[in-house]
Amino acid sequence: MSGTEIRIDRAFAERLFDELRTRTADEPGVTRVAYGEGEQFAHDMVRREAAALGLSEAVDAAGNLYVTLPGADSALPAWVVGSHLDSVPHGGNYDGAAGVLAGLAAVKALRSAGITPARPVTVMVTRAEESCWFPVSYLGSRAALGVLPPESLDVPRSDTGRTLADHMGALGLQPDRVRRGEAWLTSANVRGFIELHIEQGPVLEGADLPVGLVTAIAGSFRYRKARCIGEWGHSGAVPRSHRRDAVVALAELVTTLDRVWQEMTDAGEQATITFGEVGTDPALHGFSKIPGEVAFCLDVRSGSPACLDFVHARLLEIVGEIESRRNVQFDLGQRTGSTPTALDAQLRGSFARIAGRNGIAAIEMPSGAGHDTAAFALAGVPSALIFLRNQNGSHNPDESMRIEDFITGATLLAHFLAVDGQ
Amino acid sequence: MSGTEIRIDRAFAERLFDELRTRTADEPGVTRVAYGEGEQFAHDMVRREAAALGLSEAVDAAGNLYVTLPGADSALPAWVVGSHLDSVPHGGNYDGAAGVLAGLAAVKALRSAGITPARPVTVMVTRAEESCWFPVSYLGSRAALGVLPPESLDVPRSDTGRTLADHMGALGLQPDRVRRGEAWLTSANVRGFIELHIEQGPVLEGADLPVGLVTAIAGSFRYRKARCIGEWGHSGAVPRSHRRDAVVALAELVTTLDRVWQEMTDAGEQATITFGEVGTDPALHGFSKIPGEVAFCLDVRSGSPACLDFVHARLLEIVGEIESRRNVQFDLGQRTGSTPTALDAQLRGSFARIAGRNGIAAIEMPSGAGHDTAAFALAGVPSALIFLRNQNGSHNPDESMRIEDFITGATLLAHFLAVDGQ
Repeated sequence: MSGTEIRIDRAFAERLFDELRTRTADEPGVTRVAYGEGEQFAHDMVRREAAALGLSEAVDAAGNLYVTLPGADSALPAWVVGSHLDSVPHGGNYDGAAGVLAGLAAVKALRSAGITPARPVTVMVTRAEESCWFPVSYLGSRAALGVLPPESLDVPRSDTGRTLADHMGALGLQPDRVRRGEAWLTSANVRGFIELHIEQGPVLEGADLPVGLVTAIAGSFRYRKARCIGEWGHSGAVPRSHRRDAVVALAELVTTLDRVWQEMTDAGEQATITFGEVGTDPALHGFSKIPGEVAFCLDVRSGSPACLDFVHARLLEIVGEIESRRNVQFDLGQRTGSTPTALDAQLRGSFARIAGRNGIAAIEMPSGAGHDTAAFALAGVPSALIFLRNQNGSHNPDESMRIEDFITGATLLAHFLAVDGQ
Repeated sequence: MSGTEIRIDRAFAERLFDELRTRTADEPGVTRVAYGEGEQFAHDMVRREAAALGLSEAVDAAGNLYVTLPGADSALPAWVVGSHLDSVPHGGNYDGAAGVLAGLAAVKALRSAGITPARPVTVMVTRAEESCWFPVSYLGSRAALGVLPPESLDVPRSDTGRTLADHMGALGLQPDRVRRGEAWLTSANVRGFIELHIEQGPVLEGADLPVGLVTAIAGSFRYRKARCIGEWGHSGAVPRSHRRDAVVALAELVTTLDRVWQEMTDAGEQATITFGEVGTDPALHGFSKIPGEVAFCLDVRSGSPACLDFVHARLLEIVGEIESRRNVQFDLGQRTGSTPTALDAQLRGSFARIAGRNGIAAIEMPSGAGHDTAAFALAGVPSALIFLRNQNGSHNPDESMRIEDFITGATLLAHFLAVDGQ
């Protein structure tokens, strides 16, 4: 590649982002339902563009799309560069799509520069990453790896109530092969998985840097259907000593856990603690009633299993203490969650080196959000996740990203592929 | 009355409570809509029983019912003994009704004992005391006193959306006279107002006493539509330093104000502080989203205006402090409330003396809840409120009261009337 200039085609990227936004618009924002119309449109668009670029194409039993640029030795395991094309309802245009289009733009740049990579480069378009549609993490990726739990095929989609298998069938896919756990991707045919994704947070923007190299994907524990139960009463007639106020008890849990988090942060530990939903029941509550019950959910994330264990232990302690002091009961419900996933240090080192070589400023950072990359890393595939600076978070219509930052990320990726990570 | 025994007719009271419960049942509990079917049934039942007792009857322009036992000198201002017969939806059978039936049972006991009271005794059945139907305090009582704000006639009833004037008209009442502020009750025709009411709280039950003599009816300040506004974000992607979490901010307000209340209680101050409704918006929230907004309401009550002022000042301080530290905004919305009302010390002294004389154990206590008595006291009428021990609060189907305690209260009332409070 000596002397050949790698140049990401800005007009190409802008045209595809615009087409995606326009054709999957659902004001405000975009909606691309997993195994639904919007996602399918996006897959078809990528397939069309790949054909125009002369890439070969394949679709696995679960509907993940693979478009491949041949390498100098096409028998070598490929670099798989991927992300998803579904979105949350009324979400933003870049969450997922930026990674897919970065892969496509990088491959196009290699082509234009006349560079043949050492090994095949496959742009993978995963299915159903957003768990709002099916309550299953990394659905498409895990299906591709042959590790999707078979019972996932029977879960209903949130908007239709029809099962995953049913929706796959409607698109002419092969749910039975997915159920049998047939793996499309294996360590024999994959050299490593690389995902570019918008950060969804304010860290890069705050640090004034375009790119982040992710060290680990946070694991979590979650209580999605927790309740605090006290006793309903007349707000004027029940004195302090007799109260079992569920809202005051929950507020104490929230503030105490928030203090724990502050102490962890002060000690340099990485975690997030979020009570995303709280609510007294409108059918029962009243401005002049002591709340006898309040529902809430709790999402705790960290890249460190020890941190998760510590917060969970403190949670149970605090809950027990509040229960006995305030005569209330917490029913936390079912615990769910995921394991923290450290990403491949060697791959990350390659990206850091290649970024430095090409004048691209980058920092290492953890990811609090889950990503397809986690499924690959958990399956033992060397995996890298590159964050692109973006504004206004994600999962909302205001999500945004500067095209310059996209180009910087895609340029880094193209350079990596051009030198086979060396 | 020397030698004559005053005896409350238990079977009479039980029969009427049963009839009320059966005929206004709305499982679970009872529903007696103000100016609606259930309340009207209850008024008609009292009218029928009064006729059977030979009492005279009148109905004012607002539909309050008055049944009167003549006194030795019927030109003297009367004792008015009253309470309401409406209920909250799916409420209990005794809230309001106990006071009306106590008046009726006391008058019956005087009759049976052959006692003619010194002055007329009027059992007043007020309308629309529960502000869940019309958002107006002490509606019937204030209409009787000629002090109901005229615009109250135009407020809609919560279940039908039709105005108060419309509902009065449908019952053949005279909303125009109410609007003009014609007073049915004046200091010229009322010696004093006496209300018996279930406590709605656990204090008498805890103190093992049947009767409480109320010193003051708490005033309040309320924010019924308050919000805390932060910023929505991804629960995993936004680090602690960048968060504007509305739920954590509200939790801090709740716990800090709860600490203020604890300190007030330790210092012997009477107040209640209740956040009766809290909730993130189900259309916007998510278990993996930092809550950008949470709605809540706040109800603070005290018999002391200074306490209300103190809590309000602390509220604003705490809100300001949290706003600047957590970069959120509180929008408290419209402040409503009522003035604390001290009750007549002389009347209370009479009840205490007469209770002692008749072996009835009673304590003085404040009322955190509002009652018709407040309207009379605010209008300058000497007023007394007597609490009856009850179980399981009120405004719920589990509300209960022992008939023995009702009889104790009615006996105290009959003795009071028999000796004209002397």
